[in-house]
Amino acid sequence: MSLETYRLTEEPRYHPSADEIALYEAAYEMRLPVMLKGPTGCGKTRFVEHMAWKLGKPLVTVACHEDMTASDFVGRYLLGAEGTYWQDGPLTRAVREGGICYLDEIVEARQDTTVIIHALTDDRRILPLEKKGELVRAHPDFQLVISYNPGYQSVLKDLKESTKQRFCALDFDYPAATIEANIIASESGLNPQDAQRLTRIAGKSRNLRGKGLDEGASTRMLIHAGRLMVAGLPITQACKFAVITPITDDPEMRSTLSAAVDACI
Amino acid sequence: MSLETYRLTEEPRYHPSADEIALYEAAYEMRLPVMLKGPTGCGKTRFVEHMAWKLGKPLVTVACHEDMTASDFVGRYLLGAEGTYWQDGPLTRAVREGGICYLDEIVEARQDTTVIIHALTDDRRILPLEKKGELVRAHPDFQLVISYNPGYQSVLKDLKESTKQRFCALDFDYPAATIEANIIASESGLNPQDAQRLTRIAGKSRNLRGKGLDEGASTRMLIHAGRLMVAGLPITQACKFAVITPITDDPEMRSTLSAAVDACI
Amino acid sequence: MSLETYRLTEEPRYHPSADEIALYEAAYEMRLPVMLKGPTGCGKTRFVEHMAWKLGKPLVTVACHEDMTASDFVGRYLLGAEGTYWQDGPLTRAVREGGICYLDEIVEARQDTTVIIHALTDDRRILPLEKKGELVRAHPDFQLVISYNPGYQSVLKDLKESTKQRFCALDFDYPAATIEANIIASESGLNPQDAQRLTRIAGKSRNLRGKGLDEGASTRMLIHAGRLMVAGLPITQACKFAVITPITDDPEMRSTLSAAVDACI
Amino acid sequence: MSLETYRLTEEPRYHPSADEIALYEAAYEMRLPVMLKGPTGCGKTRFVEHMAWKLGKPLVTVACHEDMTASDFVGRYLLGAEGTYWQDGPLTRAVREGGICYLDEIVEARQDTTVIIHALTDDRRILPLEKKGELVRAHPDFQLVISYNPGYQSVLKDLKESTKQRFCALDFDYPAATIEANIIASESGLNPQDAQRLTRIAGKSRNLRGKGLDEGASTRMLIHAGRLMVAGLPITQACKFAVITPITDDPEMRSTLSAAVDACI
Amino acid sequence: MSLETYRLTEEPRYHPSADEIALYEAAYEMRLPVMLKGPTGCGKTRFVEHMAWKLGKPLVTVACHEDMTASDFVGRYLLGAEGTYWQDGPLTRAVREGGICYLDEIVEARQDTTVIIHALTDDRRILPLEKKGELVRAHPDFQLVISYNPGYQSVLKDLKESTKQRFCALDFDYPAATIEANIIASESGLNPQDAQRLTRIAGKSRNLRGKGLDEGASTRMLIHAGRLMVAGLPITQACKFAVITPITDDPEMRSTLSAAVDACI
Amino acid sequence: MSLETYRLTEEPRYHPSADEIALYEAAYEMRLPVMLKGPTGCGKTRFVEHMAWKLGKPLVTVACHEDMTASDFVGRYLLGAEGTYWQDGPLTRAVREGGICYLDEIVEARQDTTVIIHALTDDRRILPLEKKGELVRAHPDFQLVISYNPGYQSVLKDLKESTKQRFCALDFDYPAATIEANIIASESGLNPQDAQRLTRIAGKSRNLRGKGLDEGASTRMLIHAGRLMVAGLPITQACKFAVITPITDDPEMRSTLSAAVDACI
Repeated sequence: MSLETYRLTEEPRYHPSADEIALYEAAYEMRLPVMLKGPTGCGKTRFVEHMAWKLGKPLVTVACHEDMTASDFVGRYLLGAEGTYWQDGPLTRAVREGGICYLDEIVEARQDTTVIIHALTDDRRILPLEKKGELVRAHPDFQLVISYNPGYQSVLKDLKESTKQRFCALDFDYPAATIEANIIASESGLNPQDAQRLTRIAGKSRNLRGKGLDEGASTRMLIHAGRLMVAGLPITQACKFAVITPITDDPEMRSTLSAAVDACI
Repeated sequence: MSLETYRLTEEPRYHPSADEIALYEAAYEMRLPVMLKGPTGCGKTRFVEHMAWKLGKPLVTVACHEDMTASDFVGRYLLGAEGTYWQDGPLTRAVREGGICYLDEIVEARQDTTVIIHALTDDRRILPLEKKGELVRAHPDFQLVISYNPGYQSVLKDLKESTKQRFCALDFDYPAATIEANIIASESGLNPQDAQRLTRIAGKSRNLRGKGLDEGASTRMLIHAGRLMVAGLPITQACKFAVITPITDDPEMRSTLSAAVDACI
Repeated sequence: MSLETYRLTEEPRYHPSADEIALYEAAYEMRLPVMLKGPTGCGKTRFVEHMAWKLGKPLVTVACHEDMTASDFVGRYLLGAEGTYWQDGPLTRAVREGGICYLDEIVEARQDTTVIIHALTDDRRILPLEKKGELVRAHPDFQLVISYNPGYQSVLKDLKESTKQRFCALDFDYPAATIEANIIASESGLNPQDAQRLTRIAGKSRNLRGKGLDEGASTRMLIHAGRLMVAGLPITQACKFAVITPITDDPEMRSTLSAAVDACI
Repeated sequence: MSLETYRLTEEPRYHPSADEIALYEAAYEMRLPVMLKGPTGCGKTRFVEHMAWKLGKPLVTVACHEDMTASDFVGRYLLGAEGTYWQDGPLTRAVREGGICYLDEIVEARQDTTVIIHALTDDRRILPLEKKGELVRAHPDFQLVISYNPGYQSVLKDLKESTKQRFCALDFDYPAATIEANIIASESGLNPQDAQRLTRIAGKSRNLRGKGLDEGASTRMLIHAGRLMVAGLPITQACKFAVITPITDDPEMRSTLSAAVDACI
Repeated sequence: MSLETYRLTEEPRYHPSADEIALYEAAYEMRLPVMLKGPTGCGKTRFVEHMAWKLGKPLVTVACHEDMTASDFVGRYLLGAEGTYWQDGPLTRAVREGGICYLDEIVEARQDTTVIIHALTDDRRILPLEKKGELVRAHPDFQLVISYNPGYQSVLKDLKESTKQRFCALDFDYPAATIEANIIASESGLNPQDAQRLTRIAGKSRNLRGKGLDEGASTRMLIHAGRLMVAGLPITQACKFAVITPITDDPEMRSTLSAAVDACI
Repeated sequence: MSLETYRLTEEPRYHPSADEIALYEAAYEMRLPVMLKGPTGCGKTRFVEHMAWKLGKPLVTVACHEDMTASDFVGRYLLGAEGTYWQDGPLTRAVREGGICYLDEIVEARQDTTVIIHALTDDRRILPLEKKGELVRAHPDFQLVISYNPGYQSVLKDLKESTKQRFCALDFDYPAATIEANIIASESGLNPQDAQRLTRIAGKSRNLRGKGLDEGASTRMLIHAGRLMVAGLPITQACKFAVITPITDDPEMRSTLSAAVDACI
């Protein structure tokens, strides 16, 4: 499978909040690695997709998890009819052929994965495949992007300082209300008025963050609610189904959130 | 084995409690992922079976456990005469061929499994098979459903916020008394009067939840008792065998429950 | 190897204590799963053997331990001349061919093993072989039995509530004195008088349970002592060798038990 | 390799302390499993060797350790030219061909190993080879012996009650002074006077057990010292080299022990 | 792949701080192993590259991580058409063919890796390949270098004393201001004035170390900022993107750092 | 590879401190196992090399580490063209062919390794290869030597009492000043005056042990410093590079040590 299958064929919609596009472009021009920081569901993945499309580069996304090892990134030996043969992992393919490699929630992965990217993020720009005994020099187009949710990380699961210092970093947060309403409307097909109502509901839920809620409603949840409304559900039912029931089991918090929905319609 | 073997051939009986069928249908229409929350044995699995039958889609059920890894969902390389070959896991088959995939008690599984479903639950609807180097785009009919028992989860074993926010959620609980009696009667073949007696017994046990009992008698247990009564056991013996002895070893709690049985017959 | 090798060829002696045989027969008639609760060495295994013989079904016994995984129950791929082939595990064979499968001390096994039996213990009666991609529907004769020692289990190692609720449960304890003397005599060939002496000694040791002894002498230990007496050892030596030295290293407890032996002869 | 290579060809010298030979013979006559309890280096292994020789049975000794699994006892599949084939482990060979199997320091092994022996230690006398799908019925000559050091075991690493209750048990301790001097003389070739001196030294060290020493000098250490004296070392040098330096690094305890040596020569 | 591919083809720029080049040359002349101590991003890797280039030796760099085992250094058996064959790891290749082997952040690796280098770091200069049964005697040109960040190491993850004592050690720190400005200018192409401004900013951040910052801005970060300025970003934006956002999420610390940037421009 | 490659071809220089050579020779004559106790870098390995050379026996040295298992000592099955074949480990080769096997820092290895040597260290002198199903009887020339650093061991990582009691033990420490100066001079080629200076420096550092230093300068470090002086470095630079910087990062301790160096030159 060629890296071309990772090339985005249509523009992923993205509504910029500030100067993030210009900063990213400068970093890409210098091939500096970039780190995206921010809460879940606020558009980090969409931003990378947008930039990869804008720069015309293939995008290899890897969702990290705690059972992920360096081999899952870099490649491994498989057993074929003639004995073992090497298969490049997603990172190696982006390094060799020149794509943007996006490691989503990198801190979830085991530490060997963060060390493996060190030589790719300084001026050496090499990927040592120790098991294969090969040094891959990065294609001139290659760039590394990682994401990271600072609000989530426990002390035990944080990026090492020697890793953090290798990246330029961009902060992400939920978009401003008007931008968010536009996003909801364009992603779900909902009418603008209802989209604004959903945005107001989200704002109230986000004020409850840390006061009984771990996290407020994400933009993604609002899009879900919007789509359910397009499918015919009334706003209260759609919000209960797509926003309230998923984020809390606490009866009082549920009433508070239901009241917030009622107040916004 | 084709996904067709996972198609239900007869209607699974299901007694709705509220608007859960309409909500599920709206979610399916928009192919939004759904999370079912509720205690053990209250009918979550039966509900998904019913909806899969109603929508005419194959249903792939995976019971999650803590030794389960992403490979168990997604697939793995096996060793054949010509070397290794890839075998799709249950999730991948549902994604490719267009079924409903139901991951029962998802929090039991290791975290890599919850991350693997992220790209399936947003607008990308893709499943990256990293070990195979393939991006599977979901069949238009594919939908993901997970279940989750909020009363059980320890702090250590909870869904990540970034996972929860991807699902529409439905609450489940034991059915109302008349509905439950109907379910017992139709599932066990017991006469309606005895079925109502069993329902009253269950109600008393559920009031003891948190007061010495971890969990009251489930609908499933009442069906067991009903079937033993159909097999000829008197109600006290059936309840002792199928309800009281299984849920507690505490002598006082057992007397309390026995007294509850005696009071209801 | 056919499941027929698991069919018992001669009647395992069993002395019933109460209505356990009738209850078990009703459960088997309805193919409900059964859980046997009780201390070690009180006859649970023998009871299942007896019932399997009585019902004329093969009995597959699996002694569970903490390194046991679902694969040990269900089966695994082995490597043959033509690549890997599947080998059914003991549970799968009982499910396919229609035997009683007895999982002894199920809580010792890892949790994946308890989840794997869920779909076998409700009305679906199926065993999903996820690694093989096969759904095995249970033979009409199949039944599942598990055992469980409530006195032993730590909080960390208990059956999940969602597992417990799937089983009818029977309590077991050491048999009443006359029954136990009969068992000792018939199992060891000892004369009835000495068998009664051993029963009295056991009674005294069981009173010390929780007062310095973790567990009193089991019926199995008394049979051992009886057989040593048949081999020519006097009762004090036989009891020291087969009962006292095995269960405690505490010098005072040993004197107390020796005095109990002396008092009973 | 036949089990015959495990048959002892010359009599292992053994000096009985009490009635242990008669008790063991009665247990073997009834094929009851036996547990040997006692401190390190006091002659447990030698006793089993002696009994195996006396009864004319092959003896398979397995030194248990914490990385040992059931497969190390029972056997495993190996990969040959025609695919995998089964190789019996040491326990299985003793079970099939009729030897005495001695599991030395059984508590060190992982718990799956203790469960695997359960069906061998009751009247079933079977060894289920779950990975092979075979039930091995024990040869009539087979007997199981285990050893166990009660002074060592932590609470976390103790035999399960359900295992202990399956064994007849014999206590072992360091032999009485005259017997021990005979053992030292016959094992090392040392003259009786010096052997008695070593015995007196050992007695003093054993009095220090729990008062700064974890364990006193074992009979084995005294034999070592005796052999070094036969090789020409004076008693003080031999005791320092073979007794004092090995058991303690504490300077004061070393002086105390040196003074004890000086007092005994 | 020959070790020649590890030979540096152009001189890595290096600005010495003190007598480190002479000390390293003396150590290499005697083939003594060297340990480089210092914080992340201060130039340790660059120094080894410079010395390898100066001495005309190939340089094999291994970035250590906590899942790294001795096999990753030393080699392993792989499966080929004719069965397993041995593949040398990076350390073994440097030992055999005579290169400098640089183990970066050695304490991250598992302890077996530190023990494996013991026989290479004393006068034996051998590498035992235990799995292969081979003793590799080091090529006369072979030298071992390790790096180590004392500020990072927890008590649990420190070099063993018996390892430390085998190495000559050099301290590294951030370079003096003028040297650092030169480095920034020559590495990023930035004009000297701006390079000095960045150096002053770094100095302020380093004063905050331990007062809310785990680590100040590294030289590497300043080079990143310099390159972004060359790409057209103004200094405040470049510092925010490449220095401030990566090292802290604390709003107050971010203001302090922004004020420091403003004060230096 | 024959065991002959493990035979030392030239005499390893060794300066005895007391009667250790005579004691070792007596132990070897009786083939008693020997344990060497002492701090790192004081000459334990050199002593065993010397004795092996003196006795004319091959010496197999194994550096133990915490990921080392019994298989690394004993051997394992490898996969060849005709299926698996057995490869003896280093211990097994010494046992079969009659060498001295030196297990360096045995406590670092996993416990299965210490149990595997039990049957080799009593009068049985056998090595059971359980995975191969073979009992190897030791060659008459075989002897086992282990080393052990009592100052290092934590409570969790100590030799089991049942292992300790199997060995004769020798204490090692840094050599007396004149002997140490001779060693430094002969190993490094340094002139005697400077060698004595280094010895005096070492003495001062050893007095700081436990008062801020984990360990004083070892003889090995002094030899390193001596060789750097032969390569042209002045004594202060050589001591800083080879002694002070490696053993401490504490600024005050470094000044104290530097002052000690200055005082001795």
